[in-house]
Amino acid sequence: MSSFLAEQDFAIPHLVVDLDRVEENYRALDKALPQADIFYAVKANPHEQVIKRLASLGSCFDTASLNEIDLCLNLGISPDRVSFGNTIKKVRDITAAYKKGIRLYAFDSDEELGKLAEHAPGSDVFCRVLVNCDGAEWPLSKKFGCSTEMAYGLIVKAKEAGLNPVGFSFHVGSQQTNLDQWDSALSQVEKLFNDLARVGIKLTLVNMGGGFPAHYTTDIPDAQAYGQAITKAMDGHFGNNKLRMIVEPGRYIVGDAGVIEAEVVLVSRKEDKDKKRWVYLDIGLFSGLAECIGEAIRYPISVPGKEHSTETGPVVLAGPSCDSLDILYQNTAYMMPLDLKAGDKVLLHSTGAYTTTYSSVGFNGFPPLACVCI
Amino acid sequence: MSSFLAEQDFAIPHLVVDLDRVEENYRALDKALPQADIFYAVKANPHEQVIKRLASLGSCFDTASLNEIDLCLNLGISPDRVSFGNTIKKVRDITAAYKKGIRLYAFDSDEELGKLAEHAPGSDVFCRVLVNCDGAEWPLSKKFGCSTEMAYGLIVKAKEAGLNPVGFSFHVGSQQTNLDQWDSALSQVEKLFNDLARVGIKLTLVNMGGGFPAHYTTDIPDAQAYGQAITKAMDGHFGNNKLRMIVEPGRYIVGDAGVIEAEVVLVSRKEDKDKKRWVYLDIGLFSGLAECIGEAIRYPISVPGKEHSTETGPVVLAGPSCDSLDILYQNTAYMMPLDLKAGDKVLLHSTGAYTTTYSSVGFNGFPPLACVCI
Repeated sequence: MSSFLAEQDFAIPHLVVDLDRVEENYRALDKALPQADIFYAVKANPHEQVIKRLASLGSCFDTASLNEIDLCLNLGISPDRVSFGNTIKKVRDITAAYKKGIRLYAFDSDEELGKLAEHAPGSDVFCRVLVNCDGAEWPLSKKFGCSTEMAYGLIVKAKEAGLNPVGFSFHVGSQQTNLDQWDSALSQVEKLFNDLARVGIKLTLVNMGGGFPAHYTTDIPDAQAYGQAITKAMDGHFGNNKLRMIVEPGRYIVGDAGVIEAEVVLVSRKEDKDKKRWVYLDIGLFSGLAECIGEAIRYPISVPGKEHSTETGPVVLAGPSCDSLDILYQNTAYMMPLDLKAGDKVLLHSTGAYTTTYSSVGFNGFPPLACVCI
Repeated sequence: MSSFLAEQDFAIPHLVVDLDRVEENYRALDKALPQADIFYAVKANPHEQVIKRLASLGSCFDTASLNEIDLCLNLGISPDRVSFGNTIKKVRDITAAYKKGIRLYAFDSDEELGKLAEHAPGSDVFCRVLVNCDGAEWPLSKKFGCSTEMAYGLIVKAKEAGLNPVGFSFHVGSQQTNLDQWDSALSQVEKLFNDLARVGIKLTLVNMGGGFPAHYTTDIPDAQAYGQAITKAMDGHFGNNKLRMIVEPGRYIVGDAGVIEAEVVLVSRKEDKDKKRWVYLDIGLFSGLAECIGEAIRYPISVPGKEHSTETGPVVLAGPSCDSLDILYQNTAYMMPLDLKAGDKVLLHSTGAYTTTYSSVGFNGFPPLACVCI
């Protein structure tokens, strides 16, 4: 990676993804959770070469839209390896996906269930339930999922409506570092499995979603630790009942496989006596770094050739646009070399996930984040 | 507008811009501030037809990047009607802009001044100063501008470096509804003019930036009221000293000239007893509605044919992506018809500014916001 970057002279910011690192991350998770089917969350980084490499390793794919489904199918991935995991789908997209052979769908509401029953008859469906997600750096709000009481009723109704309800999904929050959360969520799911078995509905699938973290500025448990915690929780709740287990990692697979090379556009002060400098990069919230909103994700940042400089001082980091909201880090303490100046390159590490597709089409006239795979 | 919309059957969200309304807004501001040169802030909506219509009315253009400059010049607008108003510019972009004939630049720091002196020698430059912007719905933070003490020094230095310092700019915040803010800002600028005149530097330009509001859900003063407040403040501070005045409206010109037609993808509840429904649209924070972050801008929303429905209930409004942050309005009280369902069209009004270019290239596989002008 560093030798590749040293040879480039990019005029605009580029994300460089190391495909071997993608493979390494996939293999580590596969080893830690051999009993699970890995459905890569395409939205994290839909670059064709990322998808191809993962497909060659045997990965399945979790998609959020018809365009993501088409991306996978056009690369030769068979539809039985693709799930339509968004609980919010247009009728015309369900219809098209069904016609293309997609038979695994997520839902969390009565209206969505009705759409699936009508336009994807007989398909496998799983219901997303709301779980506690304390401990996640990018928490999930209540946008997805429903209460367990509602989920129970929806599974019964799905069966009646001619669908094949297979189980439940839940997400413990992105970048989840509290390993106990999976156990707590599985308690809820176990109860649902038992209640539904009592009315003759035998479920077979637990979809654990994502939440596996990438390496940013703080230490995180490794894949092995996640695997052990999840395996132990599954054994505790489901014992010898061998269920199909799905995980949907995105950030974990591509996050630390990517580095963005950007450029310093300006270093300035607001008053002569300011200790804190403002450093403006040619990438900002609207050109790929949307996850810096609220300073939620704190990427490690380095200046090539000056990684070990001791002559550093505090900075505010901001993007290049005329939007005053376009500030990356104001409250997080970042230190940068005192001799930093316009034209210097900077590297934003662990930026492989949720950057390229987040970038705007042309806010302020700036081009979207480019991406190359090596 | 409403008859045009009634005839469409868009498969994806579209912004429709009424060019006559753009013209009307331009003319109202021109009438309210006849002494000012209007530099339309291209970033608000860079659609070619918007730029062309404004160019035909005599507008000048404030640009944030080389791409925006090229857009204007390629439409036949002469470079003396275009300013490079971003205080954060790459050397290669300054060099290219200068070569294309751009001679009016903004800056707010020593490093930027150095770049301009070297790569845009002899150009007119204005320094952006920090002013109080209480009262703005989209406040400006401290990203742009410098203290008045620093501004004084920079203007002196600009002169010494062979540039032609012409004055100051300031922004009172976007969607500014407190008319006293212009008077307060002009006090700071007047003092700077006087101090610099004492050392033999006679300035000629006051650039008031933007801040003129569009119509959203609250009442705002009209152009006439802004014109009177600004004219009175200018007369009070500069009297018979006839300065060149620039204003840089963006939102004011195109905001209420645009309507987004979107579609309801799902209406759901999280628990059976929930009074509040979740309404998911096919447009969200990452496909054009970034200004809903923090619920800062509250667009009026209507359901065609049900504008006067009394059978309504509270809703949370969210986008279609699998991102849990992609929620439009959760704390703002929006009411929508009780019989709202998937497939219904909704109109988001006053969405002409800061929507199309904010939209992501393809987050979750969803296409960017389309735009048509009528």
